Amino acid sequence: MPQRYATPDEAEAAYYAAFQAADLDAMMDVWLEHPDIVCMHPVGGHLLRGYPAVLEGWLHVFARELDIKLELKHVVRTVTADLAVHSGEEHITRSGDTGVSGIIRVTNVYQRTLDGWRMVQHHASPGPREPHVEAPPDFLAGGGGNRTH
Amino acid sequence: MPQRYATPDEAEAAYYAAFQAADLDAMMDVWLEHPDIVCMHPVGGHLLRGYPAVLEGWLHVFARELDIKLELKHVVRTVTADLAVHSGEEHITRSGDTGVSGIIRVTNVYQRTLDGWRMVQHHASPGPREPHVEAPPDFLAGGGGNRTH
Repeated sequence: MPQRYATPDEAEAAYYAAFQAADLDAMMDVWLEHPDIVCMHPVGGHLLRGYPAVLEGWLHVFARELDIKLELKHVVRTVTADLAVHSGEEHITRSGDTGVSGIIRVTNVYQRTLDGWRMVQHHASPGPREPHVEAPPDFLAGGGGNRTH
Repeated sequence: MPQRYATPDEAEAAYYAAFQAADLDAMMDVWLEHPDIVCMHPVGGHLLRGYPAVLEGWLHVFARELDIKLELKHVVRTVTADLAVHSGEEHITRSGDTGVSGIIRVTNVYQRTLDGWRMVQHHASPGPREPHVEAPPDFLAGGGGNRTH
């Protein structure tokens, strides 16, 4: 039988796909069924520990109408043979919005098991209002819009 | 030469001691000097990546008069041969306060190196207002103070 998630990146892709689909079964398939898994949602409650608590947390999240899209950016990976930590910033876009409407800072942890890589920790927290500036803003370059000098 | 931190717990103790002492040198000795270390302070800015950015972040933190005590509670450890993830809740007490004055949710990541265990990630975020209830409150038991029935 093939392993479900062959790499931490595969597990991460499955996590975000499950989130996007608000699919509780798919979400809980990504998580390791273990008493020491930990999930922290961005709203700031206590950490949820263990499979039943994590499941209940996602049940509450998926009970709301989310209608948002998450995209993980600026990912930093620390990967060893059995454990992988991915940190980054989730860019939230709401349907109808033209730009990024929110940023969540996130740390995702995956563990290698006999049945492939599974999520064991997720820590999300409110991030900055604006995305990283990828290039110098136009005004710093002395420009205005697309004008040339 | 003995390794500086023989276990993730030793590195963690050194981290909190450095924080308590507002000692930048001791703090940066705990961190691995690597371009992929990540630090997220609870205030919600962008993630700080790499040794120089992490150092600058702590410089800003220690420039303020903190006068607080942090105690890590409810720690959940996921430890493998080379990487350790500790999650928990930091209880903040301000000098003069009788109880916990704030809670920070935290994920600390340590990596084993040739020179012992070092911190490679720290993600802190605002937590709940009240600590976990460790035992049923007195009123639920029908009691009042230390009276017996």
